[in-house]
Amino acid sequence: MGGQRLTALLFLAFLFHSPSSAMPGKKTKHHHPCKSLVLYFHDIIYNGKNSKNATAAIVGAPAWANKTILAGQNHFGDLVIFDDPITLDNNLHSKPVGRAQGFYLYDKKEIFTAWLGFSFVLNSTDHKGTINFAGADPLMNKTRDISVIGGTGDFFMTRGIATVMTDAFEGEVYFRLRVDINLYECW
Amino acid sequence: MGGQRLTALLFLAFLFHSPSSAMPGKKTKHHHPCKSLVLYFHDIIYNGKNSKNATAAIVGAPAWANKTILAGQNHFGDLVIFDDPITLDNNLHSKPVGRAQGFYLYDKKEIFTAWLGFSFVLNSTDHKGTINFAGADPLMNKTRDISVIGGTGDFFMTRGIATVMTDAFEGEVYFRLRVDINLYECW
Amino acid sequence: MGGQRLTALLFLAFLFHSPSSAMPGKKTKHHHPCKSLVLYFHDIIYNGKNSKNATAAIVGAPAWANKTILAGQNHFGDLVIFDDPITLDNNLHSKPVGRAQGFYLYDKKEIFTAWLGFSFVLNSTDHKGTINFAGADPLMNKTRDISVIGGTGDFFMTRGIATVMTDAFEGEVYFRLRVDINLYECW
Repeated sequence: MGGQRLTALLFLAFLFHSPSSAMPGKKTKHHHPCKSLVLYFHDIIYNGKNSKNATAAIVGAPAWANKTILAGQNHFGDLVIFDDPITLDNNLHSKPVGRAQGFYLYDKKEIFTAWLGFSFVLNSTDHKGTINFAGADPLMNKTRDISVIGGTGDFFMTRGIATVMTDAFEGEVYFRLRVDINLYECW
Repeated sequence: MGGQRLTALLFLAFLFHSPSSAMPGKKTKHHHPCKSLVLYFHDIIYNGKNSKNATAAIVGAPAWANKTILAGQNHFGDLVIFDDPITLDNNLHSKPVGRAQGFYLYDKKEIFTAWLGFSFVLNSTDHKGTINFAGADPLMNKTRDISVIGGTGDFFMTRGIATVMTDAFEGEVYFRLRVDINLYECW
Repeated sequence: MGGQRLTALLFLAFLFHSPSSAMPGKKTKHHHPCKSLVLYFHDIIYNGKNSKNATAAIVGAPAWANKTILAGQNHFGDLVIFDDPITLDNNLHSKPVGRAQGFYLYDKKEIFTAWLGFSFVLNSTDHKGTINFAGADPLMNKTRDISVIGGTGDFFMTRGIATVMTDAFEGEVYFRLRVDINLYECW
């Protein structure tokens, strides 16, 4: 009898001390994403001359600036809306697997820094659904982490971290971001 | 003795294989919301003449547009701030149960598509608290899923999916959205 | 034998009824944050004369307003981008521990109400990482709750509630917010 009770107690102890047992409000750190993706997106900002190719446009600007050229002081105060193609590799002309849609804003005078709110709207054979992002993007850092705040479809209710890298930057018209998405909550 | 151990093992197996057992970082898909609501909200956009009734206004626009009429090219680049009444049915004149507050922006040239960041601020006998939303809204689809990214009060820490439907669309001044909110995380 | 089975059943019952057992999609309410912080941030809005000191600027405004003075009707339609110093106490001149970066927008004509999307970018000996926020801010209430929608670094994957209080408000140029951050999901 004592043996069985001990066995049950050990099971119980195992359950409560196991790193995989969940207690809401006291989650343990996990370093293994449940899903990972690497994608690129390409932003061509409207500059007054490229309306055909532009995928983004300045729609808000501070009092001292206008909407056909990024503002001085590291573009502080510029708000840009975009609809950028997403590709699997770093080639602007590769077949898009979806669109990156939303906005970014430049929010620091002394250095390039942005804030992002956008979605990946994916529609390929591999992925159908959206991933929603928000967070600060200190552009001068080689890699920057923003939050995956939710998702739909294949990414239903997901959460995670997206590591953003500037993969190319040409003049003040084109840039390409590489996004390493690591999802730690998958449903 | 073997019988009791077997029983305990079966219990254990049940615990770990049950669809309701939680392992953080490896959540299983659940299709049963813990809370559901259906609400409507009503958006009347300022057009230069309706300042009394307007609940929304264009506050950002691309270089080629202005702020009293939605821009060409499917309103690409227009940013709208709103404070819209929320009702339980599809009648604009029903007693509001709260306000939908935040912004939407049109982000595609070829087709109507928007991105939303807003809150439901509810203050009725049934619900007191806020629900926060973010996500892409491809308006031409009959239903669109966005993320519930958090909440306060009665909706403390909640997460879920909101399915948005355009319930009415009159000229370029009034639209009504039906929002089916399904919450999958309730605290 | 009956005794051991009973014991096991009681253990099982305990497991499933314990307030700390987790069932995704049916989380129980927890009132004990896993991490708490109190921080202040300071916003000095550009008014056409203070470009040196300003930490914020109006970048979007409705048709009836401009970008060097906050709009009438409780600033409805003004969109402000900011990069504000964060301090541990309520002194603007204390050594900053990070920057609050993002945007707020005024979204109601009848009363002061805002909507916030921003990050705390912390870089001190105590905290390295970002906390991302979103939500409605009904400014006339003494305290307002917004959502912590994610984080990075020391705040990896966190969620919680931030209670915002207006700690000072001077003319239409300077305000200081006290933010009590309570995190209920820590990884």
